[in-house]
Amino acid sequence: MIDNNTMLLMIPGPVNTHPKIYAAMSRPLIGHRTPEFKELYNETLNLFKKLIDTKNDVFIFTGSSTSAMDSAIANLVQPGDKVLNIIQGKFSERWYDITKAYGGNSIVLNIEWGRALREEPLIEILDKNKDIKFITICHNETSTGILNPAEKIGKIAREYDKILIVDGVTSVGGDYVYPDKWNFDILVTGSQKCLGIPPGLGFIMVGSRAWEIINNRTTIPSYYVNLPLYKQWFEERGDTPFTPSVPLIAAQNISLKMMFEEGFDNRVKRHRRMAKATREGAKALGLELFAEEEFASNTVTAIKTPPKLKSKEIIEKMKELGILIAGGQGKIKNKIFRIAHMNIVQEKDILITFSALELSLRKLGFSFPQGSGVSAVEQVFEKDS
Amino acid sequence: MIDNNTMLLMIPGPVNTHPKIYAAMSRPLIGHRTPEFKELYNETLNLFKKLIDTKNDVFIFTGSSTSAMDSAIANLVQPGDKVLNIIQGKFSERWYDITKAYGGNSIVLNIEWGRALREEPLIEILDKNKDIKFITICHNETSTGILNPAEKIGKIAREYDKILIVDGVTSVGGDYVYPDKWNFDILVTGSQKCLGIPPGLGFIMVGSRAWEIINNRTTIPSYYVNLPLYKQWFEERGDTPFTPSVPLIAAQNISLKMMFEEGFDNRVKRHRRMAKATREGAKALGLELFAEEEFASNTVTAIKTPPKLKSKEIIEKMKELGILIAGGQGKIKNKIFRIAHMNIVQEKDILITFSALELSLRKLGFSFPQGSGVSAVEQVFEKDS
Repeated sequence: MIDNNTMLLMIPGPVNTHPKIYAAMSRPLIGHRTPEFKELYNETLNLFKKLIDTKNDVFIFTGSSTSAMDSAIANLVQPGDKVLNIIQGKFSERWYDITKAYGGNSIVLNIEWGRALREEPLIEILDKNKDIKFITICHNETSTGILNPAEKIGKIAREYDKILIVDGVTSVGGDYVYPDKWNFDILVTGSQKCLGIPPGLGFIMVGSRAWEIINNRTTIPSYYVNLPLYKQWFEERGDTPFTPSVPLIAAQNISLKMMFEEGFDNRVKRHRRMAKATREGAKALGLELFAEEEFASNTVTAIKTPPKLKSKEIIEKMKELGILIAGGQGKIKNKIFRIAHMNIVQEKDILITFSALELSLRKLGFSFPQGSGVSAVEQVFEKDS
Repeated sequence: MIDNNTMLLMIPGPVNTHPKIYAAMSRPLIGHRTPEFKELYNETLNLFKKLIDTKNDVFIFTGSSTSAMDSAIANLVQPGDKVLNIIQGKFSERWYDITKAYGGNSIVLNIEWGRALREEPLIEILDKNKDIKFITICHNETSTGILNPAEKIGKIAREYDKILIVDGVTSVGGDYVYPDKWNFDILVTGSQKCLGIPPGLGFIMVGSRAWEIINNRTTIPSYYVNLPLYKQWFEERGDTPFTPSVPLIAAQNISLKMMFEEGFDNRVKRHRRMAKATREGAKALGLELFAEEEFASNTVTAIKTPPKLKSKEIIEKMKELGILIAGGQGKIKNKIFRIAHMNIVQEKDILITFSALELSLRKLGFSFPQGSGVSAVEQVFEKDS
């Protein structure tokens, strides 16, 4: 490792960022109340809407992704409202925390961490609790590497007439997410994962069924992430009520354009290829995947830490070689390590990650046939190229 | 005007930003859960605390300045609490809006826009309303160019045992702000004014008397700007609960260091010199200042638009010459125009602004002795150099 600025980021955000993004951020600042900024902002919003193929309203907060999650609950859930929080990991659990903060009456459906949500338990709990008003879910659970079957969940939520609130923080931009077609009422995401720029922007899509609820409220216990305020401001003036992070909007504009230049289908295919190579490489090394493979995330892979090793040691050894990977979070903190493959990650990044992983594991006394991880990765790339 | 990226920003944020700041933002991203980031974050916090000479807690939100304002009220004011909102312009009015959003029982002390808060009306209203719990004020009212006598206000607030909540968005970093010495309980500010970097960070200082109130609450109707969560996370882990905007923290770190390199006294002296030159230049052109001069802001000057002209026209003419100035806001939108002198604004910027202002005014048919504005500016610089 030379230093932190030469590190390959294989963590689930912040991600490796294209040089064009830094260039966009380094353009001299422009006033945020100028026609030029409005044009930039509107174009960026429209590119984002095109990415997720929505006709709904979208707003961009200056904030972490959590600012958008906070907004969803603050604007929709009133004290006592029954909210079904589906918990499958650390990020889906955050919906529960926010629900409680606003006095929501939370019902939890716990799904074993590392497993996807199936239709049956969802239908069962909805049948039993007719008064559930909202359902929260994390589309791609970053802490476990699970990609939930969102389209099926959306179908059920709509059939039962529930408002579906979806965290798409680590899926939007790296995998297909189609909120209109899939019956999401709210979708939130952030800039620093598969949207390809540094942290600092939170996105929220608000559907008409969500607006109906919001518009019927007399007060909303929030100012900074108050949706009617953003909507009114945008409709009247075409920009944001509070000073936006101008360089990040400029960066997001470029990043979205780059996605369409690559072709979004190509981009998703690339993410899926990197994910598959990561899984095959891990298995070839005799490691076990944490998430059930049928529902494996295309943007982050969770791998069980071998019994005699510690996640922290593997991360440390990788870091010495200039590659940053992530450990577990919450109750599986020490049980897994995670390799993310987001944004501009390409073949060479997965190859070097597995070379370094082989070196690291061997140093820690874990044995496997020499070169087996890298070979498996190569085979995936040979086949799918 | 060539384009928006070659514009001299004489608006009250975003401000002209030093090239070193763009360089800091363009360093490859680092992981936000690394020891290296924690070190950067802690150093930045400590530099900021040194700047305002505080021993209190400070937290940095990924957000506009308003995120920090929102946090102050969400965490402190409970429904029905009596809050004295001192309104003297658009930004002090924002405290009122936020107070209402959280169900606070607002009492308004209206001060004529363009005038400072004196001690007498404050004492009078406090004497009449013994049950006031909080006072909100804007230290430097950006919309009118007034700098309130914050130390005197703080003294009264403490004598009356009120919790004083101060917006220092356009004073911190450009003028002296000493919350501990001046008895502020809460101070909020943002990155994009005199702190010298792009928009995207909100700062909040929380004093012990504010903590007492917060700690006695059972629930706080906010998640994203929930202060106990930030405090707990910082104490346990030394960083932030939600992904921070890594490049902006890196930029803020450099910007604060640059302030101490210049010397903070020198920096304030420079801001005051630029402000004085702006006022003298305006008066020499036969223009009237909007704010009473005794309490004129050192970071932004509001100038009355001459009767036969329109603010919008002056701004447009200046823009054609490559200089962005601001109009009025709220009820004085068309009555004034504003020239900000923040961050790295120096002699040459004020000189060119007045040359351009002379050209613009003349084009619009406003007459004055040729060169009188620039001459007055030069005289200030000659005397004070």
